[in-house]
Amino acid sequence: MANHSKAKRGIPPKEDFNSWYPAIVEIADLVDKRYPIKGMDVWKPYGLSAMGLIDNLARTEMSRTDHQEFRFPLLVPEGLLDKENRLVSRLKAAREAGVDPSDLRFDDEESGFKKEVYWVTHGGENKLEIPMFLRPTSETPMYTMFSLWIRSHADLPLKTFQIVNTFRYETKQTRSFIRVREIHFFEAHTVHADQEGADLQIQEDAEMVQTIMHELCLPSLVSKRPVWDTFPGAWYTKAADVVMPNGRTLQVATYHHYRDQWADAFDLSYEDSMGVTKLCHQTTFGMSERLLGAVVGMHGDDKGLIMPPSIAPYQVVIMPVAAHSDANVLPAVEALAQDLSSNGLRTKVDSRDVRPGVKHYDWEIKGVPIRIELGPRDLSAGKCIATLRTGGKVEIDLDGSPANVKEMLSEISNELRNRSALVVSGLVQKFPIENLSVNDSLESLIEDGIVYEIAFDGTDSDAELIEKKTGLTLLGVSDNKFSEERPCLVSGNLTLKRSYIARMY
Amino acid sequence: MANHSKAKRGIPPKEDFNSWYPAIVEIADLVDKRYPIKGMDVWKPYGLSAMGLIDNLARTEMSRTDHQEFRFPLLVPEGLLDKENRLVSRLKAAREAGVDPSDLRFDDEESGFKKEVYWVTHGGENKLEIPMFLRPTSETPMYTMFSLWIRSHADLPLKTFQIVNTFRYETKQTRSFIRVREIHFFEAHTVHADQEGADLQIQEDAEMVQTIMHELCLPSLVSKRPVWDTFPGAWYTKAADVVMPNGRTLQVATYHHYRDQWADAFDLSYEDSMGVTKLCHQTTFGMSERLLGAVVGMHGDDKGLIMPPSIAPYQVVIMPVAAHSDANVLPAVEALAQDLSSNGLRTKVDSRDVRPGVKHYDWEIKGVPIRIELGPRDLSAGKCIATLRTGGKVEIDLDGSPANVKEMLSEISNELRNRSALVVSGLVQKFPIENLSVNDSLESLIEDGIVYEIAFDGTDSDAELIEKKTGLTLLGVSDNKFSEERPCLVSGNLTLKRSYIARMY
Repeated sequence: MANHSKAKRGIPPKEDFNSWYPAIVEIADLVDKRYPIKGMDVWKPYGLSAMGLIDNLARTEMSRTDHQEFRFPLLVPEGLLDKENRLVSRLKAAREAGVDPSDLRFDDEESGFKKEVYWVTHGGENKLEIPMFLRPTSETPMYTMFSLWIRSHADLPLKTFQIVNTFRYETKQTRSFIRVREIHFFEAHTVHADQEGADLQIQEDAEMVQTIMHELCLPSLVSKRPVWDTFPGAWYTKAADVVMPNGRTLQVATYHHYRDQWADAFDLSYEDSMGVTKLCHQTTFGMSERLLGAVVGMHGDDKGLIMPPSIAPYQVVIMPVAAHSDANVLPAVEALAQDLSSNGLRTKVDSRDVRPGVKHYDWEIKGVPIRIELGPRDLSAGKCIATLRTGGKVEIDLDGSPANVKEMLSEISNELRNRSALVVSGLVQKFPIENLSVNDSLESLIEDGIVYEIAFDGTDSDAELIEKKTGLTLLGVSDNKFSEERPCLVSGNLTLKRSYIARMY
Repeated sequence: MANHSKAKRGIPPKEDFNSWYPAIVEIADLVDKRYPIKGMDVWKPYGLSAMGLIDNLARTEMSRTDHQEFRFPLLVPEGLLDKENRLVSRLKAAREAGVDPSDLRFDDEESGFKKEVYWVTHGGENKLEIPMFLRPTSETPMYTMFSLWIRSHADLPLKTFQIVNTFRYETKQTRSFIRVREIHFFEAHTVHADQEGADLQIQEDAEMVQTIMHELCLPSLVSKRPVWDTFPGAWYTKAADVVMPNGRTLQVATYHHYRDQWADAFDLSYEDSMGVTKLCHQTTFGMSERLLGAVVGMHGDDKGLIMPPSIAPYQVVIMPVAAHSDANVLPAVEALAQDLSSNGLRTKVDSRDVRPGVKHYDWEIKGVPIRIELGPRDLSAGKCIATLRTGGKVEIDLDGSPANVKEMLSEISNELRNRSALVVSGLVQKFPIENLSVNDSLESLIEDGIVYEIAFDGTDSDAELIEKKTGLTLLGVSDNKFSEERPCLVSGNLTLKRSYIARMY
């Protein structure tokens, strides 16, 4: 294991999260950050495998809900942006005309992606007639094609997704998985006959996010983003944020209800059963390698990663003991590995000629859920010792071991869910005061690394006041249902609504 | 099925291959070519699924031979080309110094990729300090990292691969899968302690290519490319070419032995067990979506695609008959589908409310190997009729159907192998004359659409003469062993060597 010497150099304590995180992603061999472009890491086999298993969670959900996988080109000709810009202009005009803010879906500061994309200007030594950009996300290329594919109500709903590399010209500090310039990206795009169809899709997206987060053993805060943080052209945006151990929130999934706004810009219309031409309604749903970043950040400890069993590249590592002195050991190890593998368990045999302590140390860093030692004494007893990455050792019968291992994996998952729920419950707190007055100074009240839940039912300018006075960002209105009426932080009016304010990644 | 109306527009006869091929890739719903950049097609679910299954064939071989999957960044800073250019210059200088041509590994006309790549010059509105290009292949980014990873003989061999999108600024006419600008690409890169290790790797590559071609039911010509067609920096290049039905050859796989030439340029060295620093030896192995192009071109017929069972997205489609009048039909269809799926067969139920003829027609176009109809009469007889895409109908017992279906799939694969071998044997012919003289005119001898096997043991300038006089391209010396000595086409000296000349894609 080439990274062993590096590991020996020591993992910072997790308490010092801002040192621990960037160190562990390399020590555990997920990525190598030494590629000469910042924010473009090399995925090493262990990291790529974990990411592939996250992709598979998404693919399973997509398949269950009748989405089909496509792959669109990476490059987008500049001209296609015109349609997007048309959308921007219309929404801006609407806003300037004084349309009700709750009907406003666009923040012109975010207008277009032009400033955030990489531009391809030359092919070989030739200057391209039309510059092209690397997709930051695929609304523009996809909707261009959708408008060719959709003619009648029989073509709807169209439910698509792709898993691809996307790019963002990131000027902020980059962090592996969290803020990168080449992004391993998941995006689902759907087209419906009417708003109701899109509404149902948003519900389905919410359920899929919950399923995936459950598999990853990650609690999340789901909220409806404030208007100024809504995706361009969206009617509204909902997002799932994971509270990282340092109290910063990490947006890991978003889903957008577009109503017919993009359809209008991209001429996405269909003939209904009466022959009437109508605009389509659309949604998108996005996730990325940030999911792996959240897994790393939430579950790891001072000793390294802890991989949730659902995405652990190896769920079980078997280590032969005293194989030199007993010829029965290696065949028994192979038989056990075969038994576990054929029962669908991702199993690795570590027969390196190094001390058991080294093996434990290496696999502990990589967060393998279960490590099994098997030696002559275990063989004669028909039992072996399993070490759980979440702590503790369990004696298991060699007969029926796949069922035992599956049960242990399930317990490990539950333990990770409990632990992460506990972490988050300590980091999400009620705001210490109930009434904000313009003259209040909040500096002494705001604790670093805490996500605050506030009762809030105010306007955009109320929200702006809160952000300004706290230095935190409004995540938006929580999707949870609350039963206790509390006074709105700004207006004092009683409300059931809760919002979160936090420092976001 | 949205493409049905398109299919009705008619498939050109396969005899007219140059019309048939571009039509069928869209009619069978593999890709959509209407994306506004030529040579960048949209992969539709059916095409992407078939490609994914080809990827899996490659992954299986890679896993069997202990290669590990990585993923390197798409963008390469211009500066990294310096090392590549250093390699180019050294080889060029060697050539100019009159080094024996058999030791020459580089053609300066091919020098670097600079002219063939897309250049990213701007991030947002900022001009980048260092331009970056989209990888056409990944020697440069990978070897930059390898030189950080390899220190000692214990780090070798390093066997890596990745499956990624690569880009080429293609100025020739584009064709789906065959000549595109965004390429779905497979590349394996290995590093060894010495030339012998690399030699063995080349052998392993050759075996893997044969395995994959066998699964795809494709015969191929394997030859050692002439020096001027050798990959930059390679000692030698071998390639597998598929003879398409129009007689043009399509290079579908290449593997390169680099000796220590790239290692020298990239400072790829290691300490051997005696503490001596030595240069590494390297190989690469590349394949691409061209494999799917070859499958389409070779196996299809006037009615559409014929998918080899190994990569058929659906191996079996089951069509319920008279399900309206007999309530037992649909449950029986579902039970059969479940039985086949749980035995690892990719199965689809087509319960659309359209006439059986329409279903047969649609799945025939898509090349599904086996179509099964199941109706009330079949249920009472305990049998059903399977229609094979390669022709013929077979009655099978509903009991034990998975085994029956697997056997039929195996027969279909063999049938495809026989058919394609027959096609190729008709297209590859011995050259009509044995002696080429400078004054010969060959126009009347060269038949369009034929690949010629020639006895050839000559020099580069002899080869140039052949290419000039025939208008064909020399593929290189065949890897096959021949037992009959024949006179070299140019020199007349007896030789066991055979080369191929053909029109290449």
